[in-house]
Amino acid sequence: MNKKMVLYFIGWILRIEAICMILPIITAIIYREDQIREFLVTALICLGVGIFLSMKKPTDHAFYTREGFVSVGLGWIVLSMTGALPFVLDGCIPSYVDALFEVVSGFTTTGATILNDVEVLPRSMLMWRSFTHWLGGMGILMFILALLPVAGQNNMHIVRAESPGPTAGKFVARARDSAAILYIIYIAITVTEAILLIIGKMPVYDAILITFGTVGTGGFGMLNDSCGSYTVYQQTVITIFMLLCGTNFYLYFLLLTKKFKDAFSLEEVKTYFAIVFASSILITINVLDKFDGVVEAFRHSIFQVASIITTTGYSTVDFDLWPTFSKTILVLIMFCGACAGSTGGGIKVSRIIICVKTVGKEFTTMIHPRNVKVLKFEGKAIDHDVLRSVNTYIMTYIAVFAGSLLIVSLDNFDFQSTFTAITATINNIGPGIGAVGPMANYSGFSDLSKIVMSFDMLAGRLELFPILLLFSARTWKKSM
Amino acid sequence: MNKKMVLYFIGWILRIEAICMILPIITAIIYREDQIREFLVTALICLGVGIFLSMKKPTDHAFYTREGFVSVGLGWIVLSMTGALPFVLDGCIPSYVDALFEVVSGFTTTGATILNDVEVLPRSMLMWRSFTHWLGGMGILMFILALLPVAGQNNMHIVRAESPGPTAGKFVARARDSAAILYIIYIAITVTEAILLIIGKMPVYDAILITFGTVGTGGFGMLNDSCGSYTVYQQTVITIFMLLCGTNFYLYFLLLTKKFKDAFSLEEVKTYFAIVFASSILITINVLDKFDGVVEAFRHSIFQVASIITTTGYSTVDFDLWPTFSKTILVLIMFCGACAGSTGGGIKVSRIIICVKTVGKEFTTMIHPRNVKVLKFEGKAIDHDVLRSVNTYIMTYIAVFAGSLLIVSLDNFDFQSTFTAITATINNIGPGIGAVGPMANYSGFSDLSKIVMSFDMLAGRLELFPILLLFSARTWKKSM
Repeated sequence: MNKKMVLYFIGWILRIEAICMILPIITAIIYREDQIREFLVTALICLGVGIFLSMKKPTDHAFYTREGFVSVGLGWIVLSMTGALPFVLDGCIPSYVDALFEVVSGFTTTGATILNDVEVLPRSMLMWRSFTHWLGGMGILMFILALLPVAGQNNMHIVRAESPGPTAGKFVARARDSAAILYIIYIAITVTEAILLIIGKMPVYDAILITFGTVGTGGFGMLNDSCGSYTVYQQTVITIFMLLCGTNFYLYFLLLTKKFKDAFSLEEVKTYFAIVFASSILITINVLDKFDGVVEAFRHSIFQVASIITTTGYSTVDFDLWPTFSKTILVLIMFCGACAGSTGGGIKVSRIIICVKTVGKEFTTMIHPRNVKVLKFEGKAIDHDVLRSVNTYIMTYIAVFAGSLLIVSLDNFDFQSTFTAITATINNIGPGIGAVGPMANYSGFSDLSKIVMSFDMLAGRLELFPILLLFSARTWKKSM
Repeated sequence: MNKKMVLYFIGWILRIEAICMILPIITAIIYREDQIREFLVTALICLGVGIFLSMKKPTDHAFYTREGFVSVGLGWIVLSMTGALPFVLDGCIPSYVDALFEVVSGFTTTGATILNDVEVLPRSMLMWRSFTHWLGGMGILMFILALLPVAGQNNMHIVRAESPGPTAGKFVARARDSAAILYIIYIAITVTEAILLIIGKMPVYDAILITFGTVGTGGFGMLNDSCGSYTVYQQTVITIFMLLCGTNFYLYFLLLTKKFKDAFSLEEVKTYFAIVFASSILITINVLDKFDGVVEAFRHSIFQVASIITTTGYSTVDFDLWPTFSKTILVLIMFCGACAGSTGGGIKVSRIIICVKTVGKEFTTMIHPRNVKVLKFEGKAIDHDVLRSVNTYIMTYIAVFAGSLLIVSLDNFDFQSTFTAITATINNIGPGIGAVGPMANYSGFSDLSKIVMSFDMLAGRLELFPILLLFSARTWKKSM
């Protein structure tokens, strides 16, 4: 384990975080808020420690899977622990555990909140809270990679550890170029949505916050009713951009490089939209009597479906009041999640497709033992390693889920609330059902539960292994 | 597909079922009940159709995996459809769907009931209801195998399709001898429990019914409060026999053949008892304030844990009133289930062990890619095929679970009741939580939901594939 390289990386993460504080500081200046001081203090702490850690590049460049996983896992924890400081220093979230939960929820693009009333927070604090979504959406280490040649030849290990999905999001030969392309697409989508919302008469400040929450598929807003009070146009823009950001960004890369045929034959993207429309139509039929006509019912159905499947967590209505059938569909797509290589969370559509195909093949083999069929995904044969890693992923996921459920159940909330609280945090969604429904929040849980759920949010965002490996003694052994 | 052989088998199943009707007929004679007629009519129908189908052994003896699966899947469906007749003919369960649900619940040793008041049923009807548990516990086709040389050399395909667990329960070279040994052990356990209960002053009739419910890990009784009104001695006997019947019967085979060292090193059995005691202790601590002292709390805790993990479903208290932590433990062990090669249901301890080991290995490989470690279970290297089949099993299980959840949620019960209703039927347990708690029943669901849950019970008992393959067009193709 090359600890020096890991610390060097974490130094860079802290430097970048310090720079990111500029945005809330500017916000505080514009709105003449006193919180400039809290952000400055945090920025100086991050900068000081960051420069100290990354002053000199270690001479030993050895950087493999283990180092990649540990850098990402530890990096995100450090990022969250320092990111929580402004809230505590200011006192708007007095408890450090609460502030940590809130900021982990931000960086992991979960959007679960412990705030009973977000509307009383200073605007600079809300700006920082929502900005964490944007930073976490594409991954802050990817950002570092895009800018700096820190990891040399081995930066693929970072990309693999931080990007969501069973296969690493590598478009071009060099990982650094891939990261840069991803960020360019991401920024373009962000700017487009903000402009469209501003055109739709949303105040600039609100438009920026909602855009951060949408493109990072996070779900933090600045109103207690989430998106309930926005206009039909604004809600429609948000729906479209949630869906776009839950799509595999490889689609946009293919479109940009004019490979239209490849773009429109992406299996995962097609399946993802099929699930979105099928779920929306079923819910529309189920909730028809609650709305004025089919159009309005469909509009609200597809908003909640898009919000849940992309794991954003915005809502226009309190879907906790919907019939059990609709709620069950929402719970099922909570697990499904968005596409690999998107900013969304969950198990990912590609993993579901691979699982379904594997099961289908086993059935055929059972009836016709001599049948030799090659499993394909996106036109390529599914590698044996990918299959095994998908299986391991889902088994590990179930184990983390069960363990968390058990600890959080000690708080004695009803089963539905406990179950969906874990579902909504491990899948980075935000709201669940019952005591954690879209119009409720996570403030009632104990500190232990909040720490467990913060762990789940990180484990969910980083796809389990970077976080879980931190707890294995073997990871820290010097040699093998 | 050798349809003639399948029909021949089904003929034998019906003949055996007709003979089984003797037990309720004797009961009706002893208690002077009018229901003799209903059982006689059913027996004659079964016998007539059975003899017609199995009159001549087909000349084509081809009998492979496909034929094995279809015989078992279709056999159990026919068994249930005819087994439901006495209830409908008598009118004590007027709806055929209800009667089918009840008898499927019996044969699959689930123990879920649609009866609001079991105490009003004639004693012969209750005898038949409980006897189905005993027949289903070890498997009726295993019974046929033990008695008759119907399938010749290929009867291993039957054993594989009907016995629970990732590996077939084959003790000795010939499948027929294995089946006979299993049944001898099963009968010995049955007789012992009945005698112990009778010694404990339980009336003979009650003792027989409770014994059928225990050793089949079914859960049907004849009192509305399940086992709540029995004495401490009786409850303790039931606890012990539930645990014994959830143990891999291979243990008893090893004990009988004096291979004590092998017997006490069975990984699955040790893990199973470890889970039972750990869960019981955790629940004891959690519910301590509800009972007079630790001993009583532990006694009730281990009863419910044994009842749930072995998927029996008896209860001595209404655990729906316990805190969420205890309920969560019970829900988790609902999925875990008993040992392979036992009469219990669920995913099975051995599958859980194999999954945990696989995940552990993947973690090691992630940190040390050059590590070459062989996965072992019960001292033997885990076959690649076993690994793949365990993965396929769990993925298929999740898919069936999700699909059922969606359909049953149309009934608009709350999420907890819907979720645990599916959990309790697919794992062959019986009671769930909320509207399907231990003091409630399944009568409130729609016919559609009852059919879906009957399907889940069969799929759970036969470990998915024999039932699912019936719905695949490819299964029925003549060649290939």
